[in-house]
Amino acid sequence: MRKTIELSQAYRLINHGPVTLVSSAHGGARNVMAAAWAMPLDFDPPKVAVVIDANTYTRQLVEASGEFALNIPCRAIMGQVLQAGSASGRDLDKFAHTGLGLFSALQIDAPLVEGCVAWLECRVLPRPDNQQRHDLFLAEVVAAQADDRVFRDGQWRFEDEGLRTLHYFGGKYFAATGDPIKAA
Amino acid sequence: MRKTIELSQAYRLINHGPVTLVSSAHGGARNVMAAAWAMPLDFDPPKVAVVIDANTYTRQLVEASGEFALNIPCRAIMGQVLQAGSASGRDLDKFAHTGLGLFSALQIDAPLVEGCVAWLECRVLPRPDNQQRHDLFLAEVVAAQADDRVFRDGQWRFEDEGLRTLHYFGGKYFAATGDPIKAA
Repeated sequence: MRKTIELSQAYRLINHGPVTLVSSAHGGARNVMAAAWAMPLDFDPPKVAVVIDANTYTRQLVEASGEFALNIPCRAIMGQVLQAGSASGRDLDKFAHTGLGLFSALQIDAPLVEGCVAWLECRVLPRPDNQQRHDLFLAEVVAAQADDRVFRDGQWRFEDEGLRTLHYFGGKYFAATGDPIKAA
Repeated sequence: MRKTIELSQAYRLINHGPVTLVSSAHGGARNVMAAAWAMPLDFDPPKVAVVIDANTYTRQLVEASGEFALNIPCRAIMGQVLQAGSASGRDLDKFAHTGLGLFSALQIDAPLVEGCVAWLECRVLPRPDNQQRHDLFLAEVVAAQADDRVFRDGQWRFEDEGLRTLHYFGGKYFAATGDPIKAA
């Protein structure tokens, strides 16, 4: 079940370096792309940094709307993550292409992606130099949710193999996030 | 055995979101800290982005020298990664404190950390606004190496449990990187 996460704990949803799906919308158009280059940037208010290549359709929608969501996918939809990263939203509707469903966000107009296990709704902090020189977007997280089967009380708890988050190596290869190990 | 990695493949060393150790040096002083908020920023020439808090000793050394290394630790030194993230180099020599060894880098004056499995030597790209407002450092990777027991032919190959890279959840908790899974 989807639960709202306190903003001060939102960074924990991506602290371990999982691959993300960036969803965006503008003027009736919408898109989703895979992005491995995303990380937390601040705790509270939470901020994130993500690289969105200049050639992508997502880039166009994010620049026009000033918003995007980072959706955190899991192993059950790994093939669809790869598909979302391998086609362009300019050529086809990637939700239809991948079969990924969507639902309304709490604070932004970009849709959120069904089948993911966490969602961070983000508003772009305008940093034109970063965007133009480095394809780097900084954003504030304005709402966060997670599936309480795998994220509860501020902690990831991977009990179902299919609900583990993913780390992207490149090509067609991912790793599922392992169980938490306590350092001595 | 440590092998030089082609710069065009250096991003693969951190593409999956592992925790890093940031090593730095200036004027006879040196330090190492843990940083989970690091990611690739570009392929070739490779660049990285990393958050280095304004209150850290590492920040002082990086700003003074314009250099740092991202060292990628593995499970065998997980406890030392936690120690490196829990003390300040202002108060003690963190290499002595953690027992982490060091060796000379190829292109920069900052030392590299023994017991890690990959190393990215970085020169800071001066972006004062990012540094001051967001503690965010962008840097170009000028040399990269990896332990060929776990990274060969451009791919991670985790055969030894102790040599798996780590993902940081928070507190004392990490996950070891899992085996590559091929998406359908």
